[in-house]
Amino acid sequence: MATRRDVDVTDLISRARHADPRAVARLISFVESDSPVLREVAAGLVGAAGHAHVLGLTGSPGVGKSTTTNALVSALRARGDRVGVLAVDPSSPFSGGALLGDRIRMAEHTADDGVFIRSMASRGQLGGLSAAVPQALRVLDAAGCDVILVETVGVGQAEVEIASLADTTILVLAPGLGDAIQAAKAGVVEIADVYAVNKADRGGAEQVTRDLRQVQSMTAGRHEGWTAAILKLSAASGEGVAELLAAIDAHRAWLGDSGELAVRQQRRAATEIEAIAVGEVRQRFAHVHGSDALDEAAARVVAGESDPYTAAEALIAAL
Amino acid sequence: MATRRDVDVTDLISRARHADPRAVARLISFVESDSPVLREVAAGLVGAAGHAHVLGLTGSPGVGKSTTTNALVSALRARGDRVGVLAVDPSSPFSGGALLGDRIRMAEHTADDGVFIRSMASRGQLGGLSAAVPQALRVLDAAGCDVILVETVGVGQAEVEIASLADTTILVLAPGLGDAIQAAKAGVVEIADVYAVNKADRGGAEQVTRDLRQVQSMTAGRHEGWTAAILKLSAASGEGVAELLAAIDAHRAWLGDSGELAVRQQRRAATEIEAIAVGEVRQRFAHVHGSDALDEAAARVVAGESDPYTAAEALIAAL
Repeated sequence: MATRRDVDVTDLISRARHADPRAVARLISFVESDSPVLREVAAGLVGAAGHAHVLGLTGSPGVGKSTTTNALVSALRARGDRVGVLAVDPSSPFSGGALLGDRIRMAEHTADDGVFIRSMASRGQLGGLSAAVPQALRVLDAAGCDVILVETVGVGQAEVEIASLADTTILVLAPGLGDAIQAAKAGVVEIADVYAVNKADRGGAEQVTRDLRQVQSMTAGRHEGWTAAILKLSAASGEGVAELLAAIDAHRAWLGDSGELAVRQQRRAATEIEAIAVGEVRQRFAHVHGSDALDEAAARVVAGESDPYTAAEALIAAL
Repeated sequence: MATRRDVDVTDLISRARHADPRAVARLISFVESDSPVLREVAAGLVGAAGHAHVLGLTGSPGVGKSTTTNALVSALRARGDRVGVLAVDPSSPFSGGALLGDRIRMAEHTADDGVFIRSMASRGQLGGLSAAVPQALRVLDAAGCDVILVETVGVGQAEVEIASLADTTILVLAPGLGDAIQAAKAGVVEIADVYAVNKADRGGAEQVTRDLRQVQSMTAGRHEGWTAAILKLSAASGEGVAELLAAIDAHRAWLGDSGELAVRQQRRAATEIEAIAVGEVRQRFAHVHGSDALDEAAARVVAGESDPYTAAEALIAAL
């Protein structure tokens, strides 16, 4: 574990801004780890970011998110964009590490110095992923990425939160797996700016597209003024990738023209600050008052001597 | 919207303890809604609960959780248990209501006065579902339920949190959909006390069972002293339901004998109190200081004038 003494944050940030991949990796590790260096890194990144377009990719396991990410990276590299990929696994509080075997599919890009690939799990950070992901995005942004893809493992509340960190959110679906109705249940249809129905060469893609249109007609959509594109895709063969990129570019242009980009940036920063502040308060509950105060309150609730709201008020009063 | 003046909480709780379904429904609504009556209800329930065994059912969409719930309710009723069912949809922060069409499958039990069925979404509560679900469980417990089934809509962090509120957590899987590897990715394999491989009449159930055993051998398991049971099930036909119930009963007996039940109750109460306290602090950030303070801080971060950690510290200092 690196200590403050071992790390020259200013030098690391300077090297990251010159796209040194090891500096980028090191900074993201600090951001991820609740290291005491975290605040120094955050302070050092002030003013260094603000250029990259952030794409969120979400969808059920098995729909081909990694293949889609891979295809998008190829298309973005072909036109000269520098690309960051952040694979986020918010789901596993127990296993201690993301099962990112899928990452091997990205192997063709790992040797490309115009691509940064990092994965993050949800452990330990002050404020959780709501705080850690934006910081990691700033690191990749400062390193000169034009586009950053944030890919999540599953579909759920945590994925919805991460998707809300993106400028453009892409929901990947596939026939059979993770169909439109299931996505509607998971609440992710409403947050998507672009739908990509992958494995379009398989039977059923047309049905998923129709279901999506129906769900879309029933829900208000994320924003006034933008109707989410619904595209068919065959990420493995590359068919439809150009159209997907065009839809992303169109959404990016709309974000700028409509003023929505500034609205999202403001909302994201507020969410991030609040997550950090709440995380800090949570740590104070755990550490400053010792686990004893909380444990004793919990024992009283279990014994039927107190209710949890009264116990919580006492905890806050002691803060 | 009911006000404090309109509600006689003592009378409602008294009627709920005599198993009046309308009183139970009303109390759960208060618990769900951040109503000012919430604290009164919590205080009134002190000492009224502590009898029910709580089962958590989780699994990917499409594996047959509702059918499994339905089959378990039938089996529990057949032996005379009073049963509560709490369907929780933590996934949709936007749609404002759970898509619980699956509930119609429970139709056969709705006329049975030994069964309470309620659904909850994740909106509004102080402390979120981590606080609202335990309170709803106390209401159902006080109403005399011997067993309460908590069913979640999907698989993810929120579902893992809800599962951790249960005494016994059942992970439902099915061939093809939501297989063992995907469940491992979602981190839910490690929290299950019992695995039910549903749709066992279909091809592939044997493979899912083998995969599960392999995942199980790789992970430490949730607790020393209990090896999670892996069962095949055909919830629709009822095959394997008796074995599932036996596995649940065995786990319940182990919980009591090993002292693990008391450990879990203590941990759950601490989590609940902390969630309420954090929710209260979050509300104070939003309301006491006005959204202005947070908005101004966010604007400084967006403008590249401040970092979010410094902004968060200022927010806490102002508390």
